[in-house]
Amino acid sequence: MVREHTIDSGLIHHAWDRDLAPALVIEPGDTVHFDLFMAGDGQVSEGATIEQAAFDFETIYNLSGPVAVEGAEPGDTLEIEILSLRPGEWGWTVFLPELGLLAEDFPDAYLTTWDLRGGERATLVPGVEVPFAPFLGTMGNCVEEPGRHLPFPPHRGGGNMDNRHLVEGSTLWLPVLCDGALFSCGDPHAAQGDGEVCVSAIECGMQATLRFHLRKRSIPAPAFRSPPGPLGASAASAGYYATMGIAPDLMEGAKAAVRSMIAWLVEGQGLSREDAYVLCSVAGDLKILEVVDAGVWNVSMAMPLAVFVS
Amino acid sequence: MVREHTIDSGLIHHAWDRDLAPALVIEPGDTVHFDLFMAGDGQVSEGATIEQAAFDFETIYNLSGPVAVEGAEPGDTLEIEILSLRPGEWGWTVFLPELGLLAEDFPDAYLTTWDLRGGERATLVPGVEVPFAPFLGTMGNCVEEPGRHLPFPPHRGGGNMDNRHLVEGSTLWLPVLCDGALFSCGDPHAAQGDGEVCVSAIECGMQATLRFHLRKRSIPAPAFRSPPGPLGASAASAGYYATMGIAPDLMEGAKAAVRSMIAWLVEGQGLSREDAYVLCSVAGDLKILEVVDAGVWNVSMAMPLAVFVS
Repeated sequence: MVREHTIDSGLIHHAWDRDLAPALVIEPGDTVHFDLFMAGDGQVSEGATIEQAAFDFETIYNLSGPVAVEGAEPGDTLEIEILSLRPGEWGWTVFLPELGLLAEDFPDAYLTTWDLRGGERATLVPGVEVPFAPFLGTMGNCVEEPGRHLPFPPHRGGGNMDNRHLVEGSTLWLPVLCDGALFSCGDPHAAQGDGEVCVSAIECGMQATLRFHLRKRSIPAPAFRSPPGPLGASAASAGYYATMGIAPDLMEGAKAAVRSMIAWLVEGQGLSREDAYVLCSVAGDLKILEVVDAGVWNVSMAMPLAVFVS
Repeated sequence: MVREHTIDSGLIHHAWDRDLAPALVIEPGDTVHFDLFMAGDGQVSEGATIEQAAFDFETIYNLSGPVAVEGAEPGDTLEIEILSLRPGEWGWTVFLPELGLLAEDFPDAYLTTWDLRGGERATLVPGVEVPFAPFLGTMGNCVEEPGRHLPFPPHRGGGNMDNRHLVEGSTLWLPVLCDGALFSCGDPHAAQGDGEVCVSAIECGMQATLRFHLRKRSIPAPAFRSPPGPLGASAASAGYYATMGIAPDLMEGAKAAVRSMIAWLVEGQGLSREDAYVLCSVAGDLKILEVVDAGVWNVSMAMPLAVFVS
């Protein structure tokens, strides 16, 4: 028997807390439909400027759940099949003082919003379009420590992993830390690059359908399987322009690579510095090219050239 | 007029040195054919065990060059079109004490060799095959400081970048640091993952054809453009299994992700620990999933499932 549930979309929470009452109790094998609010729902509106938005990090993430899975115990593994992901009608991307990879380069906040109604790509500026590759920035089992824990950063049971590879067709495995697993999700993203360098993705609401299985084995950390075929094949269709940050520290290498990419986007492609940083966050990928060469590492920021459509 | 050259393959050197006599002088626009020795040529033989090999890091890289480009000056950019790359007949992968991402986990040296004569894939063990994606681990302009400099680590003018994305059809841009650029290349790899985590790739000889252009503009660091279409589409055809390392330090996250992958390869796929580490190095990719979540980062090791052919 296949059991499907629709979780009450009004039962949202803003923090991990093992004492929260479950919003839904399911059996292993069950499927759950979620109607997820965007991060910052009610704090930012379509077309708003940064002056018109007010971000409250205490309530910015609207997590749906907890979903209690019957029989789940600490040491088990929760398997989540990502069956369907449908972004909402619009989205936003922000960067804020003291947050993001290049916080020292971008002291002032900046906000842009996106029209997602086209269904496949969203326009940053004329000639620059970001293809959708929707996923949930946050999927997690509740932390074991009692009390209230903010939904970021990620933890051993998952959470705010911001893993863009968890697209439709993927399978995610998460360590169970509490009886019932107490799974929650939210923070939907229409698109994001590896790194999420400016601190946000294309944040949006999302219809999501997930199927849950329980595995009576332990894993040390979250793991996943992506669907057959290259991720973002349409994004890759025109190849990549990529920069390298060669440095004795991976973080410094990442910063150098993103700085070089921003310079190229500004000088070569005519973007504003702010939009260049946003584009790196929503469409560019940070790769560790090598981490073994005599104390000097190589980190790349790769931008799919398919974003340039003019 | 298109000018093509074949560089004397016997004119090899083992270090960067701006006072080396050029092996070849070319004009911008010229094409050069290289017949490149494998790294460690003469130090390791096909089918050898680690006891039968003797690695000398002073001479392990057999760089072909320097190629002097007429008119190149410090501040210019050398553009290199990677026209053709053909691996030799066999290759090797090693890890050695105190080198590699997981040096503390693997104190003992290990060597495996690969038969590359099939032309498309090489077998690690029965049922595990690595698709070729050839590139040159080292392409660089000579360092500006006089004297002899070992060919690793990479430097501002390129060098031992170990960038697996520089496959046939790619274009590489390198800062010129000396008059004439003094480009050299070597360290050919039949395949490597992002990270090269065990410290070596599938090291092999290679026939390489490169075309050089001179750009009278400056770039801060090496950059490149990959050819249209997803890199390693055949490797991606079956999707990826991937682990995550969630940690407050990118290096620690990378180590955790590779350790989880090795555990999965050993327990789930029956590989030896040593072969699992080698497979991570030659076929697995390190990605920075996020570097912005409240001080805790997420690094992934992704293994293409197409390597499992049985």
